[in-house]
Amino acid sequence: MKHYFLAVFAALLLISCNEKATTSIVKNETVNKTDSIAIKQFFNTALSDGAAYEWLRDLTQNIGGRLSGSPEAQMAVEWGEKLMKDEGFDKVWLQPVMVPHWVRGEKEVANYSVNGAKVNVPVCALGGSIATPNNGVTAEVIEVQSVEEAEALGEKMRGKIIFYNRPFDATLINTGEAYGGCVGQRYSGAKIPGKFGALGTIVRSMSSRQDDYPHTGVMSYGDIPSEEYIPTAAISTNAAVLLSKHLKENPNLKFYFKQSCETLPDAPSFNVIGEITGSEFPNKYITVGGHLDSWDLGEGAHDDGTGIVHSIEVLSLLKRTGIKPKHTIRAVLFMNEENGTRGAKKYAAEAKLKNEIHVAALESDFGGHTPRGFSYDGNDQNEELFMSWKALLEPYGLTDWSKGGAGADITPLKNETITLSGYRPDSQRYFDYHHTEIDTFDKVNLRELELGSAAMTSLIYLMDKYLDVEPVKK
Amino acid sequence: MKHYFLAVFAALLLISCNEKATTSIVKNETVNKTDSIAIKQFFNTALSDGAAYEWLRDLTQNIGGRLSGSPEAQMAVEWGEKLMKDEGFDKVWLQPVMVPHWVRGEKEVANYSVNGAKVNVPVCALGGSIATPNNGVTAEVIEVQSVEEAEALGEKMRGKIIFYNRPFDATLINTGEAYGGCVGQRYSGAKIPGKFGALGTIVRSMSSRQDDYPHTGVMSYGDIPSEEYIPTAAISTNAAVLLSKHLKENPNLKFYFKQSCETLPDAPSFNVIGEITGSEFPNKYITVGGHLDSWDLGEGAHDDGTGIVHSIEVLSLLKRTGIKPKHTIRAVLFMNEENGTRGAKKYAAEAKLKNEIHVAALESDFGGHTPRGFSYDGNDQNEELFMSWKALLEPYGLTDWSKGGAGADITPLKNETITLSGYRPDSQRYFDYHHTEIDTFDKVNLRELELGSAAMTSLIYLMDKYLDVEPVKK
Repeated sequence: MKHYFLAVFAALLLISCNEKATTSIVKNETVNKTDSIAIKQFFNTALSDGAAYEWLRDLTQNIGGRLSGSPEAQMAVEWGEKLMKDEGFDKVWLQPVMVPHWVRGEKEVANYSVNGAKVNVPVCALGGSIATPNNGVTAEVIEVQSVEEAEALGEKMRGKIIFYNRPFDATLINTGEAYGGCVGQRYSGAKIPGKFGALGTIVRSMSSRQDDYPHTGVMSYGDIPSEEYIPTAAISTNAAVLLSKHLKENPNLKFYFKQSCETLPDAPSFNVIGEITGSEFPNKYITVGGHLDSWDLGEGAHDDGTGIVHSIEVLSLLKRTGIKPKHTIRAVLFMNEENGTRGAKKYAAEAKLKNEIHVAALESDFGGHTPRGFSYDGNDQNEELFMSWKALLEPYGLTDWSKGGAGADITPLKNETITLSGYRPDSQRYFDYHHTEIDTFDKVNLRELELGSAAMTSLIYLMDKYLDVEPVKK
Repeated sequence: MKHYFLAVFAALLLISCNEKATTSIVKNETVNKTDSIAIKQFFNTALSDGAAYEWLRDLTQNIGGRLSGSPEAQMAVEWGEKLMKDEGFDKVWLQPVMVPHWVRGEKEVANYSVNGAKVNVPVCALGGSIATPNNGVTAEVIEVQSVEEAEALGEKMRGKIIFYNRPFDATLINTGEAYGGCVGQRYSGAKIPGKFGALGTIVRSMSSRQDDYPHTGVMSYGDIPSEEYIPTAAISTNAAVLLSKHLKENPNLKFYFKQSCETLPDAPSFNVIGEITGSEFPNKYITVGGHLDSWDLGEGAHDDGTGIVHSIEVLSLLKRTGIKPKHTIRAVLFMNEENGTRGAKKYAAEAKLKNEIHVAALESDFGGHTPRGFSYDGNDQNEELFMSWKALLEPYGLTDWSKGGAGADITPLKNETITLSGYRPDSQRYFDYHHTEIDTFDKVNLRELELGSAAMTSLIYLMDKYLDVEPVKK
């Protein structure tokens, strides 16, 4: 609490002095009166009168899950375009992009029998998977902990279902790292077994907790010949634990699953872009974005409805607080992050084609929980400056500023001059909901969401004020 | 994420060296090999095999709300005693204490009519309030924003219901401060109006959000004569906003509420105490505690079931990781924090009576969300040492270490030598549930809860190792 009191006290003190007089009392030249006051305004406005929560309610509850190529994705495009126009941004437009079009089909089914009792398994197809035959797949199961372990089985996989069952490492504090340590099973688990005649793969859901919700997510067959494609699905964490136990007792039990998903021809879609034109450098850009598409199972609330409303609200908060950015600030609602990142690639390709100068980009795609900090992914020259901003945002709880990846949608913009950053909220609950039917609006807290909007606006404000594509002079 | 990697790297590095060799490479003498390893063990054990979550499920779902003097409070006493005995603590006992015994009676009712339409109001009596007459209270309403504003009304209050409607200040980052800025309306709002003939008071619920759940909580008539007592209740935040709007349109509308609560004679109850005997200073004590009682409306999950299971798990984690504390470590499940703090007063009084030497105490009574830090409430000599421990816990997200109050149950132990600390988790969601029917087990996240147990165990370990009642030598 002390930090907070200090911040308020400092803000009040600074308001009563003039800038030149106070600059000398602050150690870091970037931590000055104007910045403290602007940031306090962003937080005050977001927390007392923010709009993001109701926007999110609309997106998640009136449109819901919005997988690339779906009618809901198109509705989300129109929703985003209308909202940004209604907010009065200087320019709002759609950037066409062709996207993969995978559809789930009928609800998946999985079960097996032990000692004459049928065990129903919560299951969902992984995005990009092929269907099972109409009568499903029924086979004995081999449990493994990794893609490498499966590969080593070789011909032993013939006629079997491969079951990837490596759990999240619970001792990792950041759940994103635990996800990173497991997700290879989901993404690449179906590439090798088909070559050796396996009939399908199933994977323990990518989740921090034990429950009954299967988590979907993208998988890839890479460049294997299509005749080696086999169907692949996720089962819930509880089901995975139970199946593993049953396999120890009944190694020859036969697992059945059936899914009817398919990949249709690529579909036309759009990134949705809104911008506030820069007052000094209208042809230099700072991008803030999240992804508009989501998986189909839930409402796409934390993944990534929150990133969408965060990004739009950054521009709104700049407008509402009367901040005129020097650079052009763009909110980009990227399409197709979940299964192709086609929108991200298109945005970066167009930027290159048009020789656009991109100064910085910020992405929110780790949910809408309480802000903890920002990652930095840029050149050495700007790192010290970026990290110095921590002092301005620590009073608001953003204490975790570290080097690291920024996000899938802005990484294609990376070059030697651009500063990329990823918004980093508290990670503990994110993978409880991620890619499931329970990623719904009610899991998002208004204050946590609005703190995120204000924190992101603060970073964009600082990027706009202090960064350029030329290294900062010391 | 960087911090985390650094911590793991440091722990691994340190494991491979001997203590003397590595001490020289760390700046702060308290940040040494043994401490880093012990703390990592606490977190690893809690996160991969913690027990607190299932204990909490049992306490909240099998016993539920447990207001002082209720059969459920007695069940909770027996539950805590049995659990700590089962955990094999060196000594477990009950410390008798007489507690207030207030009962809610029948479900409260409140409503009013505007333009012929009846508006039902979610309402609950405040703890300690008297009942309304059998036919309820019906009166015109005067809306105020503070106790002072009511007081200034004087005789204008006669025959009226006073409606305290100051909302939380949403711009405060820590919701505890927003609560502190409003709770006077609830606690003291019924003291003045009765003197001037008001018939009752109602208060907008102490909540960070707009919803339909009334929040109960303790109130006091102070030392006014009992003939000036008037009934007082809380209404939901949505109802408060609506009532305020309706009052502007219909200043003479008549509000009705009815409640049948009453204060029975004091009842016998207990603090539940478990301890691990100190290996070097068995007669010097370090206390870790939360409160076992809760309000009756929900399950008392975040307030304060989480503090109870945290406290018990601190001792369990010390045992499970083979740490033998020098001082005697006590888990104290305090009775009656909510409406009297009689357990706290009794514990401190007994300690004084027996001339017990209390080195330190830690309290968890701010919910079970992700840990953010600890408060320090001690003497100047130990402050620097205490704050130096931040370096050890920052890798686990505990970055907010500040001076401030420790908690209602341990503050009676305060003297010139003791070090008190309050556990400080993320505050954003706490007052969404606090004192309502939705303070239930499902609002608690396993990982967030277990991170708290590990963080608290780490602090108790450091207090035991480095603190004593004598000032630390520089």
